[in-house]
Amino acid sequence: MMTRDEALALDRADALAAFRARFALPDGVVYLDGNSLGALPKATPARLAAVIAQEWGDGLIRSWNRHGWIDLPRRVGDKIGRLIGARPGEVMVADSTSVNLFKLIAAALRLRPDRRVIVSERENFPTDLYVAQGLIELLGGRHELRLVTPNTLDAALDDEVALVLLTHVNYRSGRMHDMAAVTRRAHESGALMLWDLAHSAGALPVDLAGSDADLAVGCGYKYLNGGPGAPAFLYVAQRLQDSFRSPLTGWLGHAAPFDFDPLYRPAPGIASAIVGTPPILSLAALEIGVDLALEADMAAVRRKSLALSRLFIDLVAQDCAGLGLALASPARDEERGSQVSYAHDEGYAVMQALIARGVIGDFRQPDIIRLGLTPLYLRFVDLWNAAEILADIIATRAWDKPELKRRAKVV
Amino acid sequence: MMTRDEALALDRADALAAFRARFALPDGVVYLDGNSLGALPKATPARLAAVIAQEWGDGLIRSWNRHGWIDLPRRVGDKIGRLIGARPGEVMVADSTSVNLFKLIAAALRLRPDRRVIVSERENFPTDLYVAQGLIELLGGRHELRLVTPNTLDAALDDEVALVLLTHVNYRSGRMHDMAAVTRRAHESGALMLWDLAHSAGALPVDLAGSDADLAVGCGYKYLNGGPGAPAFLYVAQRLQDSFRSPLTGWLGHAAPFDFDPLYRPAPGIASAIVGTPPILSLAALEIGVDLALEADMAAVRRKSLALSRLFIDLVAQDCAGLGLALASPARDEERGSQVSYAHDEGYAVMQALIARGVIGDFRQPDIIRLGLTPLYLRFVDLWNAAEILADIIATRAWDKPELKRRAKVV
Repeated sequence: MMTRDEALALDRADALAAFRARFALPDGVVYLDGNSLGALPKATPARLAAVIAQEWGDGLIRSWNRHGWIDLPRRVGDKIGRLIGARPGEVMVADSTSVNLFKLIAAALRLRPDRRVIVSERENFPTDLYVAQGLIELLGGRHELRLVTPNTLDAALDDEVALVLLTHVNYRSGRMHDMAAVTRRAHESGALMLWDLAHSAGALPVDLAGSDADLAVGCGYKYLNGGPGAPAFLYVAQRLQDSFRSPLTGWLGHAAPFDFDPLYRPAPGIASAIVGTPPILSLAALEIGVDLALEADMAAVRRKSLALSRLFIDLVAQDCAGLGLALASPARDEERGSQVSYAHDEGYAVMQALIARGVIGDFRQPDIIRLGLTPLYLRFVDLWNAAEILADIIATRAWDKPELKRRAKVV
Repeated sequence: MMTRDEALALDRADALAAFRARFALPDGVVYLDGNSLGALPKATPARLAAVIAQEWGDGLIRSWNRHGWIDLPRRVGDKIGRLIGARPGEVMVADSTSVNLFKLIAAALRLRPDRRVIVSERENFPTDLYVAQGLIELLGGRHELRLVTPNTLDAALDDEVALVLLTHVNYRSGRMHDMAAVTRRAHESGALMLWDLAHSAGALPVDLAGSDADLAVGCGYKYLNGGPGAPAFLYVAQRLQDSFRSPLTGWLGHAAPFDFDPLYRPAPGIASAIVGTPPILSLAALEIGVDLALEADMAAVRRKSLALSRLFIDLVAQDCAGLGLALASPARDEERGSQVSYAHDEGYAVMQALIARGVIGDFRQPDIIRLGLTPLYLRFVDLWNAAEILADIIATRAWDKPELKRRAKVV
């Protein structure tokens, strides 16, 4: 079993080690929640200060042209595209993941007017399911949301299915779909495929074009380190852009927004997915995080992520066997995203005990201790330390205190 | 006619004069475009730096509880509510104006299921019309968008009308509706009333509750000085909150978002209008602008705005008579919002000539020179100077240069 010295040796040999110094991390914390809110890049404060003081304060309205604000959603979108295997012009930054899901699910139903079923997983992140439910209700209930498990997905793909809506890496378990294989099966049934990349973009290599994916959305504030509530992105494959229509028809998605024509005419392709005025401060912060991710080789990020998770899983398996902690993530590397989750009957209290000891992850209902692995700012020794602390908490039942069981507003 | 010294005397007597020092304004500029992008409050950079470094950087995920991020949409919403005559719990900050329009128009149609018409003005800001068009198309074309002029509004209000959708102050002309009277007429016809407050909130007193308004949206980056692309707000009257349903059903609008239940169950009232994770950096910037507006007496803001516009209109009427410049805003104070617009055949080039001389306003198709009046940071002498520069440009035809006629990307 790996010793702390061996973990330190891995850090010395780590080709990505230098990235850690590019993030402002609090002292005394092992941050395993970058899949909920990514850490602050050190370049962000100065960039935001300049955007605020020079671009907004001095430039004022002129900055839409002078500082290229109007191009920012597409510029940052194209950069994200390079992280997820998209071509230029296929990705746009806009709104939230949820709002982008609404645009794309509605667009998909419009592209498959003779089909009435959306297939998704019961274990998908709820917002994906909620957005589909809200849209179905709005459309009068003619459509059905068919919820499956990974094992029953194939059987659910019949000729009624308009859209398969899946999250690439599951938010609770970290289980990862085979994007190319699932997309192929969706296409064989005549359905479109929409991938939610919330837990993938910036965390591991994604190849949307190579997987022949139709549509995708993703999150700016997790592995892209864009800041709390950073804008999200959406992807529409080139071949669909001529027929793509978003139901959220705002002024900036018009073909000629500054004509102020009373009749909506969509901008070509994904440009029509812009709705209102883009959030410049948030976009500028997101761009810094994306630029940082672009400096890293995503294949190297993936290798390190798997090495981190393997180290942690092995240590916990050794130290916590038989103590009520069950690995809730796939044991096989190729099925696991960039996180490790455990089930524990008192998962909430265990997580509070971890946080009290400086190991920050999060809890997900009903019993999941979720630990996100962000190779750009985590060291092997951080995972070694975290495993030791977790083992100590489990062995000593340090979680068994009333104050650790009191739920906070956000968990 | 007023002299420059008399304008300076007005500034010395101005009860709102001290607010100007609270904004970071570029030297050598008279900024008459606060109705497109408000100026930077001097408190914003330090507040954003703290949110970025301490709340995001150090607090990380803990700040959702520790720094009250989760309450920010409602907290800032309630503050905006005080500016627009709403009660606590009636206003929420979320998404963009366009996305909020979608939520509220859809909610209104649901509340009037037996009616099929949305009435709006042909001259309304296009996004209001576009969003209605996109929703109508999504719903299968059963509904109709009936476009009127202010003069034909009354005649259009029959028993087919589900919703009257108007912008309180017109974006091009600055023409202001009588909110209480129009709302009453909408209600007499059995329709709901949705006000777009983009050019009202923070610019003049608004009394949503006193006007019995049903629904409203508004913009954070104009007179609220929230920064470029700041999040928008929406208002749902208390009496409608039990029956209000937004079609954009995201995870944070769920009654128990951290239960991660696969079935959507809306949070009570306006809380269900939250869709995705709120944009914390942008919200923090918006709060600074809103706090500043709350320090001012909106009645005093209105008095100064009208005095500024009257001064400008009178000077231009004297100096530019017969030179092709036509007042496009109502001459009567009670019909005019916080802006002055002129029509000119070469309006675009005139505006470029003004900008070249440090007077920043904007141009709106087809021929409108638009000058926004923001009493918190404009002086009477600014308007006096701007009128003199405009008169000189018009008298000398300084706009008649090819380089001033070349359109920029954003106009």
